[in-house]
Formats: sequence, structure tokens, C-alpha cells
Amino acid sequence: MRDFLPEDVRRREYVIGIIKRVYERYGFEPLETPAAENLETLLGKYGEEGNKLIFKILRRGEHEATGQADLALRYDLTVPLARVVAQYQAKLPRPFKRYQIQPVWRADRPGRGRFREFYQCDVDSLGSTSPVVEAELCGAVADAMSALGFGDFVIRLNHRQLLTSVLNAAGIAETLHGSALVAVDKLDKIGVDGVKTELEARGVAGAAAEKLLASMQASALADVAAANDAATDNVRRIEALAAQTSAAGKVRFDLSLARGLDYYTGAIMEVNVADLAGSLGGGGRYDNLVGMFLGQQIPACGFSLGLERILVVMTERGMFPASLATSPADVLVATFDASGAGPAMQVAAQLRETGLRVMVYPDPDRIGKQIRYADGRGIPFVAILGEDEIKAGTVTVKNLAAQTQQTSDPGVAAAAMLEALARRG
Amino acid sequence: MRDFLPEDVRRREYVIGIIKRVYERYGFEPLETPAAENLETLLGKYGEEGNKLIFKILRRGEHEATGQADLALRYDLTVPLARVVAQYQAKLPRPFKRYQIQPVWRADRPGRGRFREFYQCDVDSLGSTSPVVEAELCGAVADAMSALGFGDFVIRLNHRQLLTSVLNAAGIAETLHGSALVAVDKLDKIGVDGVKTELEARGVAGAAAEKLLASMQASALADVAAANDAATDNVRRIEALAAQTSAAGKVRFDLSLARGLDYYTGAIMEVNVADLAGSLGGGGRYDNLVGMFLGQQIPACGFSLGLERILVVMTERGMFPASLATSPADVLVATFDASGAGPAMQVAAQLRETGLRVMVYPDPDRIGKQIRYADGRGIPFVAILGEDEIKAGTVTVKNLAAQTQQTSDPGVAAAAMLEALARRG
Repeated sequence: MRDFLPEDVRRREYVIGIIKRVYERYGFEPLETPAAENLETLLGKYGEEGNKLIFKILRRGEHEATGQADLALRYDLTVPLARVVAQYQAKLPRPFKRYQIQPVWRADRPGRGRFREFYQCDVDSLGSTSPVVEAELCGAVADAMSALGFGDFVIRLNHRQLLTSVLNAAGIAETLHGSALVAVDKLDKIGVDGVKTELEARGVAGAAAEKLLASMQASALADVAAANDAATDNVRRIEALAAQTSAAGKVRFDLSLARGLDYYTGAIMEVNVADLAGSLGGGGRYDNLVGMFLGQQIPACGFSLGLERILVVMTERGMFPASLATSPADVLVATFDASGAGPAMQVAAQLRETGLRVMVYPDPDRIGKQIRYADGRGIPFVAILGEDEIKAGTVTVKNLAAQTQQTSDPGVAAAAMLEALARRG
Repeated sequence: MRDFLPEDVRRREYVIGIIKRVYERYGFEPLETPAAENLETLLGKYGEEGNKLIFKILRRGEHEATGQADLALRYDLTVPLARVVAQYQAKLPRPFKRYQIQPVWRADRPGRGRFREFYQCDVDSLGSTSPVVEAELCGAVADAMSALGFGDFVIRLNHRQLLTSVLNAAGIAETLHGSALVAVDKLDKIGVDGVKTELEARGVAGAAAEKLLASMQASALADVAAANDAATDNVRRIEALAAQTSAAGKVRFDLSLARGLDYYTGAIMEVNVADLAGSLGGGGRYDNLVGMFLGQQIPACGFSLGLERILVVMTERGMFPASLATSPADVLVATFDASGAGPAMQVAAQLRETGLRVMVYPDPDRIGKQIRYADGRGIPFVAILGEDEIKAGTVTVKNLAAQTQQTSDPGVAAAAMLEALARRG
């Protein structure tokens, strides 16, 4: 888990702000859930691997000594959403469309763009089985990617039931399907040979593994169409609808896309760029998950973007606007001695009223040191209050880049600084 | 711990946005730290009560069965800040001014505006002992309160060393000071008699308790001035400087202000409004805390606003702008049958490009049901795509409030909706 210093926070907020605005343009509404869920809410939802990676919270007070856990940190945003939909069912509209941008925690081995605390940016639609839902999610994700400045992404699309058909056709027993998909999910990381070895280690016979991998590489929808009419039809409708959205030209059927999580029941999706193994996000349809909490099925489909991976790629590619590298303030108010502190605070208040971001240097250090502080921190102006200025009710403003200075009334000084800042962009 | 449905999230984001903008105008920079800290980082920083209220996280993997904890959820934002300042010392400027708005967790008994997961909005200045720092914090907090719409708040100011002098003068042994302050801190909740009873329960003799409470009620700075010259002078300078800021007329010396936390060393502050027992926030100087991590003292002073309490009061007083109760979208695109889904998504994309927030109704339900959905959700317009519209490339837009409708090209329709929305404000 990491600290985020000011520059990091600004980059994170820039990305989150863009994703949020796009999601809101699609009619998704914000939702937030607590960091901790009841442990039972999370157990059994993420597969056996997932159970091990959950951070568990010790019971409090007299029960602490038992060493038992009753709460756990959020592992993803989908299971808490399903819990919320079940719990507030009567209060929520149907269809219900929500977005949620919050951290989740997994006791995983960290890697490039992978951390134990990381943010997911989720959008989900609940209450409809229509392929309009999947297509709209593709559109929203494509819009978000474009707004962030990505031009080269691909949204891969597959269907859990087509995978089932192909697994059956390869002669793999149903009981091994889940395990086989975990192996197939690693195709872009460990390649065909790696997956074959892992399939065999998971108990899939060599011939079946080869047959499975061969059909995955064929991978055109037409080749598997016969295997499952309903799923094929669903994929075709999603593709046709997504072509009417911002995802036009970006969606590609890919039979080798597996997605690790247990709860998917229909279409599955993933967004990829060339320079990151693994995805920037993914999702799919999970029509049975809400029912695990409610006893009544509510169809659902969602997509989750990974903030940290997006940040890794954007940082490496230099995709952040220059204006983000902002200084902590527009102007530093400097004083010669402690008696200047009162007038300095008064001038600072006047300048702030015009919208300027103003820092008062707190100590009466030498003026040279105060100016160096401003310069080192990228603060473009220093407002100096000496004895003369305090007497006359004026202020001397130094423009550090232009190496000019001017003494005037604080209102005039503020207007000049605002104009100079606007010119700089 | 609670879920926040869309309306709650919007209110929270409104308040956080205002506080952030004010803090940034004062030159504070954003910082974020992870939810979990090492358990040892937190233990021993919050007093004995505090230790018990920390949520502890079980060790993972093979160590899970031991029932031991190694991590803990953040209990406040001050101790993580001190850890960050010690850890990144060379990378951080001095003075360093940061704000941090994140949740903290305490296994406390919940109450009005008090929850087990709650957000603190902290501002802190590190590296200076100048009273400019305290005064500027008062100014920033006063600005934030005013920007939120509070006109009637008071910032109470006291000094830990004055409290020490008064406790000594009352004849209370040093070893009881901490415990006595916990009792005094409850003055506005349980009254003079309640505090007297609690002081006695904590081992303070009746006469000493009475003497202490009497001097607290005198409470004018002049009355205690003789007790501690340096502290009195510090308070007077903070008052004089704060009078030059947005906190002018809002700061009041109050000898009965105690603040529960152990780590304060100088001035302490609290912001109160009449209709909430307890404070909306508080803070003070803690010059020794960073030294506990670094071995080298770095002076520090901060103020923390409690988001949940602010929300409780603002909700009760109806202080949120009407424009916040936004609908999930500006327009709902409705279709008669599944064949309309493609054209609907195309029109939705066109409308979104103009900046409208657009929801596509996913299922071909009866048009009346779709319109009722829009109406029930406060979506002001419904764009209907029937067979004629699809053929002609037009769209029929219903204005639900005005009960009017118009068929036109999507671009014209978008312009008309944007104009109507702008008129409504």
C-alpha cells in the first residue's frame, strides 16, 4: 500500500474526474459503500484463490483475544453492489445504473500497476437482460478511454456460454471448467505453451488442452456459431449495438478471453492497450449474483476500469496535460519581520478574494530564502510587504520568471497577476 | 458503517468540493495515505481509550491461524501525516502544507453524526512554530464554514500549557492531568455537575475539582494571564493575527476547551455551532509527534473538520442548493421495440456530444412505462424514437413538466433541451 504525494493525488484526481464525467453523461449515478463488509458477504464469491487474498478484520473488545475475524476489507465493488441492491431493493429504481470509484484491497503479490490497495472505477446496470446494456457499457468505456487520450485500445468481447461449449467440445469435464478458464485467462501473459502446461497441471489431458487451444486460436465467431445459438446471437447483437456507440470499430470478438471471476454468466469484456500485458479493465454479465443475497434474481452487467494500471500507462506515455503540474499557490506573501505578519495575512485575504491561491510564508526568514522557497516550489509571484508598503497600504509583487517587480495597491496587483496567469494558460 | 446512495454521495461531494477549493486557496496541497498502517505506527498515539477503538487486520496466509494482527485501519489523518513527513522528509518542502480528505475508522459506539467509518477533512502546516500558522488555520476553517453557508459558528481557542497551569493551580497532580482533561472535554455535553462527578470518579478531590471548574468558568484570558506568560502571549498573538483573516470576530478564548487527544503541545482549537453538542471539527499544535517517528522534532499544527457532522447540521438546516437534487440524466431515450435499440444508441451518442446526460431505456417496455420511469426519476425530457422518426432521422422530444412535444432533427432537439435546462438553472 502506498502514500500519494501531492503530484500523485493531482494525477489520480484528473483521471477520476474524466471517468466520472463520462459515466454521468451515460446516466450512471454515484454510489459508495463502506471499506469493510461482513466477512460472510465476501467469502465464496471470488473462488478459492480470492478467499485467501481477503484482508480480514479482528473482532473488537473482549472478542479480540479469540483471534477471530468478523469483518473484511472490500475485495471488489461488484459484491458490495449486489449486497446493496438486495438490501435497498425497494428504494432503488429499476433499471438502476450506478458508478462507484473506491479503493479495494487484496493481499496479492504486488506487480507493475498492481498494488494491495488499488482503486476500481466501476459502472454497472441492474434490472435488464437487454444487449443494450453491454453495448452501452462498451460505449461508456470507449468514451472514457478516448477522453483520457487513449486512441489505440481494443475492447475484447466473449461469452461464458460459448466458452462452455468449446470446453465441452474439447472433451473437458464440467468439473474442470472453472479451473481450465483460470489457465486460459493467462494466455496474453504466458502464451499458448504456458497455458497448455498449466492446463495439464490442472488435470486437463494433453489432447483436450490442444483441441481447446486450437479452437481458441480460430476464434472467429462464425467458427463457434453452431456451438451455441443463443450465445452467438447475443454476441452478434452486442456487436451490432456497440457499433452505434463511441465503441464503434473498437469491439472485437475473442474466444480466448476468459476472465477469472466465478460470477459471470453471459457476455464478458476486457479493454486492452498494446503496451500493458493484462488489461486496463474488464467486466461482464452476472445475472445470478444479486440473487445470492436476495433469493430473487436481478439481472446485472458491469465494467470495471483499474485506476492504477491506467496511471502506469499514462505516466509512461506522458499523457498528462502540462497544466496538471501545478504549484501549491499562485503567490507567496513574504515579510521582513514578525510585525509584518498581520498586514501579510490581511493582504493574503484580499488576494484570495479575487480567486488567487495564496500562501503566507509563516516565519520572518531572510527575504532571499523566502523567494528561493517560492522559486523552488514553482510559485510564480512573491508579494513583498516591507515597512514602506505596510505604511502606504501597497504591496510589491515580484514576477520570478520575468524578473520584474511592481509596487501597487493589492487590488491592482491581484488583477495584474490574474491576467499574467491567464496569459500563461 | 454505512452505504451512500446517489443523493448522499452528491451531498458529500458538494461539501468536500467546497472545503477543498478553500484549502487550495490557502496553498495547502493534497495528500493521501493508505487505509491500513502498521499496527505499531498507531498504538500508543491516541491514549488508552484510542488503542481499544482501533480496527486491527489479521495477518495473512500461514500466519492467519495465529489470530495476530500486523496492520490496522487509519484512526485519524494526523498520525499517518507524521509518519509520511518522517518517511519522505528529504522529498518534502519546508514549510509543508497539506490537506487530506479521507475516511478513518474507530470501533466507537455510533451516535448522531458519529459513525464507525467517517471522513475527516484535515489541513496541517509543518515546519514552523509561528502563530501565523494557527491564525491561518482559523482563517481557512472560517472561510470553509462561510463557503458552506454557516454564518453562526465560533472558533474556540485555548492552550495546553494554560490548562496545565490551571490544573496545577487547582492542586491536581500531574499524573491526573490527562485523565482530568478527558472529563473537562465533556463540559458542553454533560455540564458542570456532570464533569465534577466524573472528575471525582477519576480521582480528583472534590475541592480541587470545584476550584478547577470555577477557574474555567471565569475563562477570560486576563484572569489566567499570570499563570503562564509564554502561553498567554502565544494566544494573544494568534487572536490578533486571526483578526486579520476571514476568522475575524469568530475566535474566542475559552479556558474550558480541552480536546481529548494526547499529542497536542500548544494552542488547541475547536469550531462549534449552536445546534450540535460537540464540535464540527478541531485541532491544535503537536510539535512532538513527528519526532516520535523521526527522532528529530518538526513543529506542526493542524485542524480537522468532520464531514459527517457538517452533513448532519446542513441536512437538518436545509443548507444544500436545490440544484444538487439532480436527476440521473437530462433525457431518457425511449424506444417501441428491440429494433429501435440501434437508432436509440446512435441518437444518444449524438445528444451526449452536446454535453447532455443521456440514459437509454434498455428494454422495449411499453412507452407509458418508460415515460413514467423518467418522470419518477426527475428526468425532464424523453426522446422517443418511433418508426417514423427512425425513417426520417428525427426524434420526438417530450418535455414532461411543460407537457409539450416536438419532432425535429437530433441536433435541433439537443439545442432546445440545453436551452430549456439553462433557463431552469
